[in-house]
Amino acid sequence: KKRYTIAVLPGDGVGNEVIPIAVEALRLAGSLEGIDLRFEELPIGGAALDLVGVPLPEETLRKAKESDAVLLGAVGWPKWDNNPKHLKPITALLQLRAGLEVFSNLRPITVFPQLVDSTYLRKDTAEGVDLMIIRELTGGIYNAHPRGFTTNEQGDEVGFCTESYSASEVDHIARVAFDIAKQRRSKLCSVDKATVLEGSMVWRKRVTAMALEYPEVEVSHLLIDTAAMDLVRHPRQFDTILTGVMFGDILSDLAAMIPGSVGLLPSAALGDSGPGIFEPVHGSAPKHYGKDTVNPLAAVLSAAMLFRYGLKEENAAKRIEKAVSDVLDRGFRTRDIHTPGTTLVGCKRMGEEILRSL
Amino acid sequence: KKRYTIAVLPGDGVGNEVIPIAVEALRLAGSLEGIDLRFEELPIGGAALDLVGVPLPEETLRKAKESDAVLLGAVGWPKWDNNPKHLKPITALLQLRAGLEVFSNLRPITVFPQLVDSTYLRKDTAEGVDLMIIRELTGGIYNAHPRGFTTNEQGDEVGFCTESYSASEVDHIARVAFDIAKQRRSKLCSVDKATVLEGSMVWRKRVTAMALEYPEVEVSHLLIDTAAMDLVRHPRQFDTILTGVMFGDILSDLAAMIPGSVGLLPSAALGDSGPGIFEPVHGSAPKHYGKDTVNPLAAVLSAAMLFRYGLKEENAAKRIEKAVSDVLDRGFRTRDIHTPGTTLVGCKRMGEEILRSL
Ligand SMILES: CC(C)[C@H](C(=O)O)[C@@H](O)C(=O)O
Ligand SMILES: CC(C)[C@H](C(=O)O)[C@@H](O)C(=O)O
Repeated sequence: KKRYTIAVLPGDGVGNEVIPIAVEALRLAGSLEGIDLRFEELPIGGAALDLVGVPLPEETLRKAKESDAVLLGAVGWPKWDNNPKHLKPITALLQLRAGLEVFSNLRPITVFPQLVDSTYLRKDTAEGVDLMIIRELTGGIYNAHPRGFTTNEQGDEVGFCTESYSASEVDHIARVAFDIAKQRRSKLCSVDKATVLEGSMVWRKRVTAMALEYPEVEVSHLLIDTAAMDLVRHPRQFDTILTGVMFGDILSDLAAMIPGSVGLLPSAALGDSGPGIFEPVHGSAPKHYGKDTVNPLAAVLSAAMLFRYGLKEENAAKRIEKAVSDVLDRGFRTRDIHTPGTTLVGCKRMGEEILRSL
Repeated sequence: KKRYTIAVLPGDGVGNEVIPIAVEALRLAGSLEGIDLRFEELPIGGAALDLVGVPLPEETLRKAKESDAVLLGAVGWPKWDNNPKHLKPITALLQLRAGLEVFSNLRPITVFPQLVDSTYLRKDTAEGVDLMIIRELTGGIYNAHPRGFTTNEQGDEVGFCTESYSASEVDHIARVAFDIAKQRRSKLCSVDKATVLEGSMVWRKRVTAMALEYPEVEVSHLLIDTAAMDLVRHPRQFDTILTGVMFGDILSDLAAMIPGSVGLLPSAALGDSGPGIFEPVHGSAPKHYGKDTVNPLAAVLSAAMLFRYGLKEENAAKRIEKAVSDVLDRGFRTRDIHTPGTTLVGCKRMGEEILRSL
């Protein structure tokens, strides 16, 4: 019997509502496939600040490193908003990504046929969209050297930070994207701002060079401003999108408007080896916490990604995805995706229906 | 009789199709208001590269500086794409902005009631949208110090550039935005990435401080990823949006999807004094050039902004805007905004109808 250890980091707010559901889905789908999962719950974010005074306790990072995969909820809570940066909940996220060296962020955007009415776009635009955003995660302007605050000649405070990409950083993430594109519809669109940013110029040059190694992959390049437009006016043109950490943050949230809710979107953050981080794209959602209204599907679909990309257990991944589709077929909807003629349910009930479908 | 000199820089591609129409609109609307305009046509971009080997000839910059306002078409053409940066057409744009010290970029997004069917969003989402994006134009990551290429310890090529904002840069552009918000619906939303970027932290602090001087303006702050989502799911919430040069580039193109065509969007770039630059948001559009199909309304509405913000001739501005609305009422549409039941016309004919309405 295969055994894996999963580090479970619910974090803050609605993370505590959706992660227990994802854990149950993992447990059940695993056991149906003869996979034995051990779960170790660890504090992160505001929860960790409350407990031990730092957003990412050493023990959390150490045990996450020792695990086979990390299931993360969300971090952040208004009461910490005025903390200095190193004591903010989201710093835990950046530290965890760095600590696990997860440099690639996979954000699939799929319009479930059952949910096409939830789109914020025109229905005929959203129909059939199935794309994957590959976002570089640990370099670029997020991991800036140098960065900080200084005073200029006029005595003014200046905040600055350096956006950069090196050839090998681009190669590293581009390799991931080409390999994924090959397993999909073999179309890769790289997004940058090569007309202005030097990092983007290196980016475009290296992606163009690597394209020669993948003659079967059709490669295109878009500027970030055009890409933002194209995601709205013609998203079906996209298969795999490759981009940097800053543009990926914007594009993946923007792309969430295609299915129509961040409550549907899972993500994976992967390194070369070692555990990946699997996390719903929505945050801690202070406004919605404690009301049993949020959508657990993003977390449950993150659990499916955990099986697929973290443990290479494709069958278990498929089981979860099938259960999600089944629950949607049976008409259950949380508030964010509720449309006339479907059954409005809360977070917990949605979780129960997932388990039933499994 | 009032006299002004307008520097006319058609530039490349469709700039040469739309700018002559904007010039005629300026001339006619001006003369109806007793304003005498002198037009001086000057080369820029690829056109200037062809003529004198640089994208922004000294004479063009000098005469632009001496003018009362600059009407710009578009710059850029594929044949120059592989030029070194200082010989690329778009460098002319960055140099012209710097030379004229136009630090604020005004990009209004208005859904004409006649054109609500052109939206890429849901019709009920787009209806009634009327917002103004104020983009900082000459600082931030576009005007990076230091920037360039270097080799790291691993012998890798690295492209880098520094994003920064100083307190006084933020104050400068925020003042413009607060003043404009006050003349509009007194709602200002400032967009940044203050959770990650130091420049954004200074940005947010200064905007928050300035808000105290404008108790009548309702101020909010959004992260760029959320702002991108909100522009798609609930754009009517916005009145005036204030943001930096990079995020403004992305948001303003994204916002173009609300009216549904970049062919409808004018812009103004203004300094503290001296001539502003008035320019349609669409580029040189190599694919569409020479076919007499592009939409001249973005250029014509830029001419209206030239009257309003450049020459403070509000009545002439209103005349042009009224003519545009009238032409739409009369059912004329270029291809980008054509819907069943309206009359499809080319660029020239659209121009003639504008003059007729004037
Ligand atoms: C919280 C923030 C630092 C984070 C990011 O931008 O990476 C989040 O927006 C995300 O997209 O995962
Ligand atoms: C051409 C480019 C440098 C320019 C910019 O990003 O400023 C353009 O995209 C714009 O938005 O005016």
